[in-house]
Amino acid sequence: MSPNSGILSPSFEQDPEQTLQPSTTVDGLFSIECLRSAIDNKTKPPGSLGRIEELAVRIGSLQQTVTPTMNHCRLIIFAGDHGIAESGVSNFPQEVTQQMLANFLAGGAAANVFAAALDVDVQVVDAGVAHHSISDDRLTMRSLGQGTANFSVEAALSAEQLEQALEHGQELGAAGACDAICFGEMGIANTSSATMLFHKVIGLPLEEITGRGTGLDDAGLAHKLAVLRSAAARTADSLDAREAMTEYGGFEIAMMTGAMLGAASQQRLVLVDGFIATAAATAALHMDPSVADALVFAHQSAEQGHAAVIDALDIEPLLDLDLRLGEGTGALLAWPLVKCAAAMLCDMASFESASISGAV
Amino acid sequence: MSPNSGILSPSFEQDPEQTLQPSTTVDGLFSIECLRSAIDNKTKPPGSLGRIEELAVRIGSLQQTVTPTMNHCRLIIFAGDHGIAESGVSNFPQEVTQQMLANFLAGGAAANVFAAALDVDVQVVDAGVAHHSISDDRLTMRSLGQGTANFSVEAALSAEQLEQALEHGQELGAAGACDAICFGEMGIANTSSATMLFHKVIGLPLEEITGRGTGLDDAGLAHKLAVLRSAAARTADSLDAREAMTEYGGFEIAMMTGAMLGAASQQRLVLVDGFIATAAATAALHMDPSVADALVFAHQSAEQGHAAVIDALDIEPLLDLDLRLGEGTGALLAWPLVKCAAAMLCDMASFESASISGAV
Repeated sequence: MSPNSGILSPSFEQDPEQTLQPSTTVDGLFSIECLRSAIDNKTKPPGSLGRIEELAVRIGSLQQTVTPTMNHCRLIIFAGDHGIAESGVSNFPQEVTQQMLANFLAGGAAANVFAAALDVDVQVVDAGVAHHSISDDRLTMRSLGQGTANFSVEAALSAEQLEQALEHGQELGAAGACDAICFGEMGIANTSSATMLFHKVIGLPLEEITGRGTGLDDAGLAHKLAVLRSAAARTADSLDAREAMTEYGGFEIAMMTGAMLGAASQQRLVLVDGFIATAAATAALHMDPSVADALVFAHQSAEQGHAAVIDALDIEPLLDLDLRLGEGTGALLAWPLVKCAAAMLCDMASFESASISGAV
Repeated sequence: MSPNSGILSPSFEQDPEQTLQPSTTVDGLFSIECLRSAIDNKTKPPGSLGRIEELAVRIGSLQQTVTPTMNHCRLIIFAGDHGIAESGVSNFPQEVTQQMLANFLAGGAAANVFAAALDVDVQVVDAGVAHHSISDDRLTMRSLGQGTANFSVEAALSAEQLEQALEHGQELGAAGACDAICFGEMGIANTSSATMLFHKVIGLPLEEITGRGTGLDDAGLAHKLAVLRSAAARTADSLDAREAMTEYGGFEIAMMTGAMLGAASQQRLVLVDGFIATAAATAALHMDPSVADALVFAHQSAEQGHAAVIDALDIEPLLDLDLRLGEGTGALLAWPLVKCAAAMLCDMASFESASISGAV
């Protein structure tokens, strides 16, 4: 049917690109074999684009097409405070969470400038920041309280808060239009929360995964480890993801977990950031293993413990740039790789189409 | 001076952004200390952006400013053929160089689609492709011949060809307007040429650095190594960069070497691609050590031997994505990191400007 025939289907009118992007292979059926064969027929020695080819397989499989769409990426930053901060586990004061929330809204944080440079939209969510007094239309309000309870003495979240966090997250992760999504976080003391989640859910020893966060010195690190050991003794050695999130989680981490589930439900590629985001991903994977199809681990963090977590989860992040900031900065840096992987599938010539000789 | 005053300097008229980008610090003097201090005052824990901070130091130092400009990136692909191809060191026939040249011009190669996805301009140069019959205004003609001589029996380039290649390269690398530049290459059998350069210039043993190129099997690899060993015996154990380039180089490799020197002379950041581009960079560094300030090694190639070369040069590439295609694909993937590093310097808030509390 020619676009000039005047007989346009409603879906064509809604999305003119749809007819240019066949969502299936010639026979109308998508298969992983077709996808791999499409990649091997591109004008390059087989396998020579390494991890970009792996990414292309992931993206094509997720969208069930050999010509995936990767035009739009969003970043959602979840901010929340942690009661454990009062136990002195961070070298920054709690007020920094709120100050950074304002910085995100003003566009001055690392995540903002990376997102702007990479053409990624940013949404900022108050998941439960303490002493919050920002009134700004651009801020998405989903606050579950003035920070969590101090998990050294009691459960960080109530059962109801956990459900609300997951629900809000699922809604936010599934909302809007984008092909890929990055999740970032801000919350003073949240490496302590993430560390406890890894310890209780996948059993990694605290001494192996407790790190310096924003920059604790040796004494600070020793204190943090002592606080976490004591807090760990409060509950059973091993907890399921919901139990662990209730006991030791954070509003922003739980909401991110929900957002990963929500994004995966829409076949959106989720670019997983560093230490904290990997804790959210671990919880999401334990709640719904099928979310694995959507998750791409963007980078290995320099935070002590992320390497052990990566080994335990048997994943191989795309980047290793010695980052330990969070905010989604590492996830953002992987977005161009995703775009290129999709472009390889959609736009590269094949040996046949370019009349190029194969290997002899 | 207000833009409405009517009294605009000529340079302002040529480049309205110039007044927005102070090229020096407040007192008019650039120093590396100012640069490091600017980075440490950004709203993030010191050092938490790891290698992006390192990159920012490199970029700021190169441009001698704390607010560097990284808006435009170009890719120049140099194509050339190699006489050694007739000795059976590649599993692809020589005609593929010419076919890929057409593919680059048609926009169908991996480098083209990556460049398009990353908003990078592409220029294609015929540095000396055999059986060349393409007539295309978009092709930059700098052909030095129908491929080099077979270095297993004689010098690959004449002294005159070497000088011409370096001269053309310097002109091309310095021409036009861009802040960063990637160089790619295409030339059947050019891993053999690069291997010989590493062997003769920095003394790496052939058995350690001779690899499968586009995909040789074990027998093919053994044959390639035997050919290279025999060719190596033709000259002294160690050669300087010019001698080695004449004896064993390629038109596209020598022209890329010149282009790196030309780009560096304009304070352009050079993103060095994989195995072949590292050979060009090694030659450039031996011809003019000051070129080091401009070179950023983009990625560790999967080509056997690149790891050894990287160790020998004591460099730490940004990416490790198991790529072994060439064409500048790995260099292109590092461009977003460079953009983000510059954006960090130019656009991120400081602790002071965002009124954020420091570490306690």
